[in-house]
This record gives sequence, C-alpha cells and structure tokens, in this order.
Amino acid sequence: MTTIDKRAESEAETLVSQLQSLIKIPSVSAKNQSLQECAILVSTMMTNAGIKAELLYLNEEKGDKSHPAPPLVFGQINSKSNPSSKTIMFYNHYDVQPPEPLELWDADPFSGKRDGNFIFGRGSSDDKGELITRIKAVEYILKDTGDVPCNIIFVVEGEEEIGSSHIEEYLTKYRDKLRCDGVIWEFGYVDEKDRPLISLGMKGLLYVEMIARGPNADIHSSLAAVIENPAWRLVHALNSLRDDDGNILIQDWYKDVREFSPEELELIRREEFNEEDFKRNYGIERFLNNPSPQEVKEALVGGATCNIAGLFAGYTGEGSKTVLPSTALAKLDFRLVPNMNPKKQFERLIKHLDKHGFSDIEVRSLEGEPPSRTPINHKFVKLVEQCAIEEYGSVITSVSSAGTGPMSYFAEILEAPCVSIGCTYKYSRIHSPNEFARIDLLQKTTKCIARIVEKFATM
Amino acid sequence: MTTIDKRAESEAETLVSQLQSLIKIPSVSAKNQSLQECAILVSTMMTNAGIKAELLYLNEEKGDKSHPAPPLVFGQINSKSNPSSKTIMFYNHYDVQPPEPLELWDADPFSGKRDGNFIFGRGSSDDKGELITRIKAVEYILKDTGDVPCNIIFVVEGEEEIGSSHIEEYLTKYRDKLRCDGVIWEFGYVDEKDRPLISLGMKGLLYVEMIARGPNADIHSSLAAVIENPAWRLVHALNSLRDDDGNILIQDWYKDVREFSPEELELIRREEFNEEDFKRNYGIERFLNNPSPQEVKEALVGGATCNIAGLFAGYTGEGSKTVLPSTALAKLDFRLVPNMNPKKQFERLIKHLDKHGFSDIEVRSLEGEPPSRTPINHKFVKLVEQCAIEEYGSVITSVSSAGTGPMSYFAEILEAPCVSIGCTYKYSRIHSPNEFARIDLLQKTTKCIARIVEKFATM
Repeated sequence: MTTIDKRAESEAETLVSQLQSLIKIPSVSAKNQSLQECAILVSTMMTNAGIKAELLYLNEEKGDKSHPAPPLVFGQINSKSNPSSKTIMFYNHYDVQPPEPLELWDADPFSGKRDGNFIFGRGSSDDKGELITRIKAVEYILKDTGDVPCNIIFVVEGEEEIGSSHIEEYLTKYRDKLRCDGVIWEFGYVDEKDRPLISLGMKGLLYVEMIARGPNADIHSSLAAVIENPAWRLVHALNSLRDDDGNILIQDWYKDVREFSPEELELIRREEFNEEDFKRNYGIERFLNNPSPQEVKEALVGGATCNIAGLFAGYTGEGSKTVLPSTALAKLDFRLVPNMNPKKQFERLIKHLDKHGFSDIEVRSLEGEPPSRTPINHKFVKLVEQCAIEEYGSVITSVSSAGTGPMSYFAEILEAPCVSIGCTYKYSRIHSPNEFARIDLLQKTTKCIARIVEKFATM
Repeated sequence: MTTIDKRAESEAETLVSQLQSLIKIPSVSAKNQSLQECAILVSTMMTNAGIKAELLYLNEEKGDKSHPAPPLVFGQINSKSNPSSKTIMFYNHYDVQPPEPLELWDADPFSGKRDGNFIFGRGSSDDKGELITRIKAVEYILKDTGDVPCNIIFVVEGEEEIGSSHIEEYLTKYRDKLRCDGVIWEFGYVDEKDRPLISLGMKGLLYVEMIARGPNADIHSSLAAVIENPAWRLVHALNSLRDDDGNILIQDWYKDVREFSPEELELIRREEFNEEDFKRNYGIERFLNNPSPQEVKEALVGGATCNIAGLFAGYTGEGSKTVLPSTALAKLDFRLVPNMNPKKQFERLIKHLDKHGFSDIEVRSLEGEPPSRTPINHKFVKLVEQCAIEEYGSVITSVSSAGTGPMSYFAEILEAPCVSIGCTYKYSRIHSPNEFARIDLLQKTTKCIARIVEKFATM
C-alpha cells in the first residue's frame, strides 16, 4: 500500500463528512439557489487542503460583482520542485439539478444521508462527489510530500446543470490564467463490474421551451366546441417534430452530422454493454426502435435525440376538472453530435414550426452547447487509461458520453484535450430521485486521480 | 312592487352573507373535501327557511353511512292549501370545481370576498349562488303567505363537478320520494344584455385519464437515445385522436349523433351571438376551424368535442432540467351529444388506441354521462319562458347548453322535463380563477324563481 492508499482508507470519514456538507447546500442553478454560498464552501475546502483558491467574476475589474453569472471557483497550486511543468486542470461544477419530484425521494435530497457504503442526496455523485475526490487527491499528495509534482488548477463552475451559460465567457476572459495541457473532465462513470469508463467526448445540447397560448384564462371546457385548446396546438406541433421510431422530422436536422470514423466504430464495438442489466435497472422491456446491440451503443455514443423533458397544461390534480387551459408548455432537449451547431439547429426548428403552420407557438432557446470529442490517440488519453488500469485493473474507453457538457469551449479556447474519468457509479441515479454516491468508489477514484497527477508531471 | 320584490331588496344582505358562508366551505368533490360539512350547512339553511330538510345516503337503511357517495340534501315543503298539487323540483349541487391555478386568483377562492355588486369565490355562481336564490324564493313566499302554492322538493347533490357519479343510483333508490312534474335545473345563464338564457338540454361527457409509462424513475435524458420517452408516446397517441381542425379521428365517433331537427335549427338561428364580445371576453382572435356565425352557435349547442383538460410529464419548473420522465399523463374530456352513449364511446376510444399501436397506454374512464334534451314545446318550458319574460322583459331559449349535467337520469328515471334558468352571468368565470356572482342577478333571479313556483301551481 502506498501512503496515498493509506490516507484514502484512514481519512475516508473526513471525505464523507465534507461531501455531506457540500450536499447540504441546495445549489440548484435552475432556481438560482444558494450558488454563492456553495462557491464559498468549495473555495474554503480548497484552501484547507492547501490549494490557493479565489472566486472569479465576469465583471471583477470594475468592482461590479452584479453580473448574473455565479462565480467560478478557481484553485491553483504550482509545483515548487518543478515550477515549469505542464499544468493539469480539474474541471467540476458546484451546482446541481433540481431535486423534483420530491415525493419520490426516500430522504431529504439535501440531507446527505449515509447508509453503509452509500451517501444519498442531490449532487452526491453529480458533481460534488467527483469534486471532493479531486480536492482530496491533491491534499493527500501535499500532505505526503509537501509539494505537487506538476502545476494544477481547478475550475469549478456554477451553471453546468443549466448549460454552462457563461463558461465560454469565463474561459475567454481568463484564458491566460486557465492555460493548461490537459483537462480531467467533471465526471466519469464506473460500471457494474467496477471498471472505470473513460469518456472522450460530450454531446451538445439545445434546450428549448415551447409555449402555446389560448384564451386569456383557464376556461370551462364546454367552450372547446369553438375555442382552440393550446394543449392541442402543442400536441400537434410536438407530433410534427418526431416519428414513432424516434427519428427527428425537422428538415436538415441530421445534415451536419459527421459519420463515425472506423477507429471510433471499433472502439464502440469493443465496449461492453449488458442489455439485460441495463433494461432491468431502468425497468424497460425494449429499446426504442428495436436496435441491434451495436446500434444501442452507437446511439448512446453518437445519436442525436429530441426528448420531451417536461409537459404541462391545465388541471393535473386528482379527479376530473373540465377545463380548457389558457397555456400549454413543453420543455425539449435535443442532444447534438459532431458537427451539429446549436444555433443552426435552433433556426432549423423555428423554420420547421413556421413551415408547418405553428408560428403561433412561442419557442425560447434556454441552452445551447456544441458537441466535442477528444482524439482517441492523444497521449493524455493514453496516460489516463494507464492510471485507470493500474488502479482498477481495467479500463473501458468511450468515444463520447451520451450526456452534454461544455467540452467544446475547453477544446477550442484553451486548446486542451479533455478526458473524463471519475467515481460515479453507472446506476447512481444522477438527475433522478435518490441519487447516491458509493464511498468505495470515492476512495478508489481519489487514489486514481492522485496517480494521474503524479504521472502527468512526466507526460 | 310585489311583497316578494320588496323582500328581495330589503333582505339582500342576508342572502349575500349566507352565500358567503357557503363559499367559505371548500367543498371540492374532485378532492373529496368538506362535502359532508357543506351538505349539513345547506340542510340547516333550508330548515331555517322553513323547508323540511334531511340528508339521504345510499346505504341508509342499514345504518351504514360509509358509502363513498357524499350525502344528497333532500328538502321538501308541501302546499297546505293545495296538497294534491303538482310537484316542482329544484336540482342543485353543493360541490365545486377545484380552485387551481391558485396563483391566478386575486383573492382567496374560498373567502367569498365582496366588491360592490360582485361576490368572488369558487362556487359563487356555480352552484352555490344558484342554490341560494331558490332557497330564498321559497323562504320569501313562506314568509309572505305562510304557505307554498304547490309542492316543492329540493335535490342538492355533492358530485356534480365530478360527473354526478351516484345521482343515477340516488334517483333510482329514492324514486318515489323524488317524483315530480318538472325540474328547474341547477344553473342558468344571463347574457350581457341581462336576458335570461333558458336551456333545455345538456351535453353528455366522457372524462378519461391516459397514462403512458416509461422507465421506472425520471432518468437522465441522455438515455433518450435508446429509451422511449412516455411523453412522446402520449403525444403521438393524443395526436392520433384529433386533427388540426378539431375533428375527432376515432372510428365511428360521430356515428350515433342525431342531426338537429328543423325546429332546433330555427331556435339556434334565432339565438343572438355577439362574436366580438365573445372573442374579446376570452381573449381569442378567431374561432376553431373558422366557422360561420351559425356554425359557431350550432357547435356550442350540438358539437361533440375532444378537449385536453390536463397534461403533465417530467420537469415543469423554472429553467432547464434534462430529464426523461417516468410517466406522462393526459386528462381528456369528450362532450357528447344526442344520441351518443359514454360507455360505447369509451369502447371506441380503446379500440382506436389498440388499432393505432397504443395499447401500452393505460386509459381510465373517470366519468360518463349521457346527453339529454327536453322537448322545445313542453308546457313546462312555456311556463318558465313566460315567467322569465315577466321578470326580465325578454328571454332566449336554447336547445342545449354547451356544458354537461346528469339531465338524462332525471328525464329517464323521474320522467320529468328539465329546464335550466338561473342567475349566472355569462362571463362570470365559472370553473376559472376569480369566479364571481352579481348581486343584482341573485336578487332578480330569486324573484323569477318565486314567479315560477306561483305559476307552477296552475300548470
């Protein structure tokens, strides 16, 4: 056992209690809730770990901290023995998804309840659990050696769950300060056989709200004989966007999609995927559009989707109420893959609705993030794979996560390769009720991150 | 001025305060809320007015009042001077629609707030306002003469707003007790020129819930690449039910609809309808499917509709949450016209969904009421028309209301003609936020009801 390994064991309780104190701050960015408070706690934790921390704002020079963007926590520690070394960045976020629906949680989503090997709570895995492993890895190295082997910076933002609306601006403004040679991405999954999944890409996202408007108030539904119901307008408009098999019917929607390269296809082919486990875990009987096993994996890595994230109109309580609603709302997320551009796709959506007679429906773009992929053969990728193998005994590398993140900005503005590796158990219910983190994985990942830092000095 | 007229003026404040005390009981049948309490208050008010009142239950003989149906308030007063006279029935209900959406009310929906000529609150018009005018009319006659000119009964139920689920059972069980020669229906509208609208029919209703089920929890929407979203299933299923113009696409949906008779068409033709007022009131720019003025009136009187009363799935709060919902819910009401039968129409709906590949969607029938129409030329109709003309100076008779009620059971089980006349201002926002009653119309209608009672003795 290395000294790091020993610390990961002996100091596990401290890690757990610090994670719990992070979970207890309900930093829900969608509701602009407790963000500053959480940023301050993160910076305090860094300082206590020996990392120099500060909060960055977009309007800082002018002494004006009133910018709507929550602060970015910037952490930095340079190597004393190797001051001109390369710099590794840890990118994380301190904001979380809304906890709703609350009634499906077995415990308060912001209590950080522990039960054996599990810590429950919104953000326990995504992303407060990930963040704590990285702070702890650096802290342990410092405690052991009084130094770090390479330069390290932390970037912890507060808007990841609402599309990282200002990360592009932050990276542009603080470009010099944030220069680095490799980014460890904010999350990484561990599968049911305890194998880390290294992901090299993120899908993009276009998130929109569609609002159909009818009469000036919810009215008696007998009037449906002569007054159009906005919920029907919405249903007809939504229906025009997608067919039963999940294909998006918007003209040229797939036009800019670049096909998988043979190398990417090969990597996907090598990925394991246990269909039965997956189906059982999510309680489904079949996959959308009856794909082959390879097609399932290709869809997760490179499928463009159109998802209804929310629907609301009229009366949704108990029993029956005969009402014709005044408005109807849909929230839609479209996952984008290389080389789709969110702005261009939004224009295509608007054009589609106009063309199909739905120009009365208000469409608002809430988020737009381009997709991104780090090249499979980059030496930083190889380094992370090697560390994962040493710590976990094996590794699975994926061309891209099925999820979204602002990776494209890091890749383009900082010109840094991004690799995701982390402690999130594949079925840890991120974004869902009863999200949890596994303490054994928090420990193991802390050790793996420490290995990466040590090896990065020699990349 | 008659003595009744004088009382209607001098005792107006008592009427108002009694209506307010009724509004203050939140008797929402959809939530099974405060129903017994409201029934007791109604029976107390009748007793105080000189009407013998009792609560009827469906299991009463067995001493078992545990039947899920709320009690029916039965009021009775026989004529001392004319004991073998005909019997007139007042049919009303003490339950109300849910008040949601609460945020759109200017005052507590159960406060009964008064502002000049207006009393605001859920049930102020529908149906507590109507009920109070009828109790008061009988009370005033009794005070003036010490007798009533004909036999009178009251039937006040507690489930009208959820489809009168047990009225058929009540009418069957208490058929002998409830025998009557004419029914004054629970409501009646007064138009913007203070003309009473006498309505002779009700549309039927089929109210269903459709529930689509997907994964076992709300999950991360990146999985939409391979897991079907139940909100999409629901949208596709709903879309199959209706076209853009409002036509219902379910096979044989309109098969049993009987055409208007020439007399009915003539009555509809004579109805006034101010398109601009109507549009302005509801804040709409055009009618569904661009109908002619006559077609608008025909649709309100005899159009079968399919209305989305509620839609819910996923995240509907502020901002963006990328979630694939576990379930999606729609509430639909179908208005039925003679001779459609709710059970038969429900079967057609199920068959349609099965045929179109939506048998995975759960469909539950929450309400079913057949449509009904009283013949235009019945002498009871003529009597009510005459009284309305005497009180209001004019009258407008309509073949059928656009709304629904259990009229068919009264017509079939009690074999009694039903006529609706009342005090509800046409734009009084029943079923909507800020429902109100006009005090001038409460007074005027009380006088009109007293006239009907007096004339009924000689029908």
